[in-house]
Amino acid sequence: MTTTARHADRLLDAVRAGVAIYDLGRQLSIGMPQSPNHPPFWLSMPRRHGDMVRADGGSAANDLLVMGTHVGTHVDALAHVSHDGRLHGGADAAAAQAGGRFTELGVHTVAPMVRRGVLLDVPAALDLPDCPPGYEITPADLDAAVRRQGTPVQAGDVVLIRSGWGRHFDDEDPGRYVGRESGVPGISTAGAQWLAAAGVHAAGADTIAFECLRPGQGHSALPAHRVLLVEHGIYLIETMALEEIARDGVHEFTFLMAPLALYGATGSPVRPLAVVGRA
Amino acid sequence: MTTTARHADRLLDAVRAGVAIYDLGRQLSIGMPQSPNHPPFWLSMPRRHGDMVRADGGSAANDLLVMGTHVGTHVDALAHVSHDGRLHGGADAAAAQAGGRFTELGVHTVAPMVRRGVLLDVPAALDLPDCPPGYEITPADLDAAVRRQGTPVQAGDVVLIRSGWGRHFDDEDPGRYVGRESGVPGISTAGAQWLAAAGVHAAGADTIAFECLRPGQGHSALPAHRVLLVEHGIYLIETMALEEIARDGVHEFTFLMAPLALYGATGSPVRPLAVVGRA
Amino acid sequence: MTTTARHADRLLDAVRAGVAIYDLGRQLSIGMPQSPNHPPFWLSMPRRHGDMVRADGGSAANDLLVMGTHVGTHVDALAHVSHDGRLHGGADAAAAQAGGRFTELGVHTVAPMVRRGVLLDVPAALDLPDCPPGYEITPADLDAAVRRQGTPVQAGDVVLIRSGWGRHFDDEDPGRYVGRESGVPGISTAGAQWLAAAGVHAAGADTIAFECLRPGQGHSALPAHRVLLVEHGIYLIETMALEEIARDGVHEFTFLMAPLALYGATGSPVRPLAVVGRA
Amino acid sequence: MTTTARHADRLLDAVRAGVAIYDLGRQLSIGMPQSPNHPPFWLSMPRRHGDMVRADGGSAANDLLVMGTHVGTHVDALAHVSHDGRLHGGADAAAAQAGGRFTELGVHTVAPMVRRGVLLDVPAALDLPDCPPGYEITPADLDAAVRRQGTPVQAGDVVLIRSGWGRHFDDEDPGRYVGRESGVPGISTAGAQWLAAAGVHAAGADTIAFECLRPGQGHSALPAHRVLLVEHGIYLIETMALEEIARDGVHEFTFLMAPLALYGATGSPVRPLAVVGRA
Repeated sequence: MTTTARHADRLLDAVRAGVAIYDLGRQLSIGMPQSPNHPPFWLSMPRRHGDMVRADGGSAANDLLVMGTHVGTHVDALAHVSHDGRLHGGADAAAAQAGGRFTELGVHTVAPMVRRGVLLDVPAALDLPDCPPGYEITPADLDAAVRRQGTPVQAGDVVLIRSGWGRHFDDEDPGRYVGRESGVPGISTAGAQWLAAAGVHAAGADTIAFECLRPGQGHSALPAHRVLLVEHGIYLIETMALEEIARDGVHEFTFLMAPLALYGATGSPVRPLAVVGRA
Repeated sequence: MTTTARHADRLLDAVRAGVAIYDLGRQLSIGMPQSPNHPPFWLSMPRRHGDMVRADGGSAANDLLVMGTHVGTHVDALAHVSHDGRLHGGADAAAAQAGGRFTELGVHTVAPMVRRGVLLDVPAALDLPDCPPGYEITPADLDAAVRRQGTPVQAGDVVLIRSGWGRHFDDEDPGRYVGRESGVPGISTAGAQWLAAAGVHAAGADTIAFECLRPGQGHSALPAHRVLLVEHGIYLIETMALEEIARDGVHEFTFLMAPLALYGATGSPVRPLAVVGRA
Repeated sequence: MTTTARHADRLLDAVRAGVAIYDLGRQLSIGMPQSPNHPPFWLSMPRRHGDMVRADGGSAANDLLVMGTHVGTHVDALAHVSHDGRLHGGADAAAAQAGGRFTELGVHTVAPMVRRGVLLDVPAALDLPDCPPGYEITPADLDAAVRRQGTPVQAGDVVLIRSGWGRHFDDEDPGRYVGRESGVPGISTAGAQWLAAAGVHAAGADTIAFECLRPGQGHSALPAHRVLLVEHGIYLIETMALEEIARDGVHEFTFLMAPLALYGATGSPVRPLAVVGRA
Repeated sequence: MTTTARHADRLLDAVRAGVAIYDLGRQLSIGMPQSPNHPPFWLSMPRRHGDMVRADGGSAANDLLVMGTHVGTHVDALAHVSHDGRLHGGADAAAAQAGGRFTELGVHTVAPMVRRGVLLDVPAALDLPDCPPGYEITPADLDAAVRRQGTPVQAGDVVLIRSGWGRHFDDEDPGRYVGRESGVPGISTAGAQWLAAAGVHAAGADTIAFECLRPGQGHSALPAHRVLLVEHGIYLIETMALEEIARDGVHEFTFLMAPLALYGATGSPVRPLAVVGRA
């Protein structure tokens, strides 16, 4: 076999020329905001340095991790939501989950994403600091963001919708970000249909549930999940950190995300990135 | 604010031109090979479809994830290993771990990696199908792989060392891959010094412990961990899937990896990627 | 070997004559009140009936349990609390916990209890329905309860102190029982010294932290823990269900409790019983 | 209200006269023998002494516990096993488990046990040190044990069947006790019917699966579970420590066991006791 053709890889050339990396994932820590529907995040060290010291003076610490898969920044696999007993593609949900894992639509089937990403900065388009609690982001709002930014959405893109709600993530009261009482801004059925019509590959938001939650209603209905996950097979990414990228006015980028290949699971924690190359 | 400068991002242009993505992570499943030193991987669905059905016919399934952070394909943070009570940079390990998390050298401080990656295919260089159990990969072997492939290692690279041992990952007996009895091939002190001298940013291997394990000796000494993590601040990536990329003769690529930002933890499961662009 | 001497066991004779069993443990369920200092209780079924059916038509369901050991009704081992770096008996806490488990004072060293138990019904003695939030139960209150009931405390007894706070355990808002804002009634230093002077073997309460918590101060100081666990080696039992036994006016009984022998742990969930025999 | 009638409780009088307590539970420790069908036991300290020190010098350590509910010494609730889709009493298993917990037959419905207990020491009756691997304990063997001991089984008893296999629990190789290759001694259909005919309340054994496992066949069929749990509503207790009680020739005793009230679960870890009073 001969050597690989070095220096003939445009991607690697672009990386070598220098890139800016935006971290779109939240730090995972005990007590962070999360939905009571999911097992809470917890981390503990079974072994600390000094607990066991090898003959040569070496020692190691390690961790035990416990969490829901829809906790922190995470992606929803298509197995996550059903409607009238059917998953995306019409599969019977009861049959699909038999055995306790989703062989077909589990998160291990979500291919790593190396794609064009577009941030739709809705508050900027609305000329507001943030969308108000419980505000429904409409197709007109999404259109306005696209126009203002000059970033049309294309088939196969990953589209991230900024509501501004993300700035509550670090509030002292973790319930603020969850927003059960206040409601949370986001798209609903109409916005989801807008995304589906655009043919996006995945969609993300800076909120815990992706969609518009009316005040006091919690998660009693999740219509955007139905439209996107069930009807169109579009992955959802929740609890994203979109403030920094918005502050820098970065609306188009290379989106990178590799979910953990948790065999048969309905979601995975992720650390998505937005990467910007040189001109 | 004006719009972002679309079409002037070389990275995004390269992505749009088409890329090949190699998955360097192992699927995480119950019963997979793992070290008894770490909490085993387990996954369970607290809620299945139909357990709670919303008024509109929607239902959701979710998961509870339990695992060590050094299980499956994972990265070691600098907090993982100490020598004579000191972490990388000389920090006192006992002080650094006070509070039960590593504020300074935890895995949340590992920046996402978008870098040149190099695969060193050692068995190919040795003209063997695989390195034998317990075989120590020497600097001469690494040099031979570089020469054969024509891929010199550069400062800042991520270097992945293939021993061929990865083909045991899916053996019926998970103990085969762990290799406690048989030993496992890998580099030791000398190979680690070779990597450190080259100034690599991170190093990976297709084995569970990265280094050469002599038959029957288990993890009684881990000299490459000391050299790389403690002395040089070089991250380690273990249990990688390197067979496919080797089969395709891909030795140079864009390496992508974003560890979960587990605050204060000593490691994180990861799904690293090798991405190859067009010429 | 000959047969055992049947019918000559007074204990068994008493059991056969009939006993009343009071359950002093709380049901463990997801979302129940618990301190944020401890990993939350969670339960999930990895396998449900039908997931795997044996050839003969048999199938089994099982569970994955995740919890802190100081969650729900539980016992504190002597390893749980230190003062000025010392555990009960003067052991150095840092040395005792080296290795990540307490070989000496862990909960596996707590012998199962089959002992005289005494309920001190403080609100009854105070002629109140319940002790008010943040109320400190004093030695005079304990004396009053003893007098009213006619149940002097004896060395080796297990003494359960009812404040009446237990009726908040099932409140819709789990924070009510935790009582961070309101405070919680209980004994403090003086009451603990009263128990120690009486030579009790263990002491329990119907609250989450055993002691008097002043409003808004949370767990900033736990003086009764120091007196009982550290200074006197007296076990503590928290989050007990004492309403039923109080309602029935049962103040003296056989107390039964067998902590899980979790090797090296600082506590264990328990289901203590009060058993009353015939006259 | 008047005082309780002290000194008129025969049970408490018997306890005060002095009792011998036998611990029938195994210590729970990382790496102990357990079935791969269940989540492994793990324990870790999120907080150690010194991690957080209160102003008064107090500090506390705590634990995170992860385990299956059929791990270590444990009791099977009636929800654990179904046959042809039916649980004990004919309940539809699929319906009963909807929601992810067993409202009806979960382990929280198992009443604490304070009952006559009988140990049937089968190897002693067979004049063998232990039953051989894979040996089926027959009704004739059970009858022989009863005769030899002079302890007829009565309705409502808890009957513990000693095979002698328990001495493998602490073997260096945890697989020895599990016995997948070797097989494990125990009763099968006929022995289960013998217990059911006697009207026992619960039955226990010193093995991991209660029943006779033929060499190499693992858990492919569990007929005694069907007879006892499904057909007769008799609880099973597994992985018991029966060596000490057998050594002391104690065949009749007061059996005490209080499962954790894990709401909706299929089993619970337990620490059963055998208590012997004075003549």
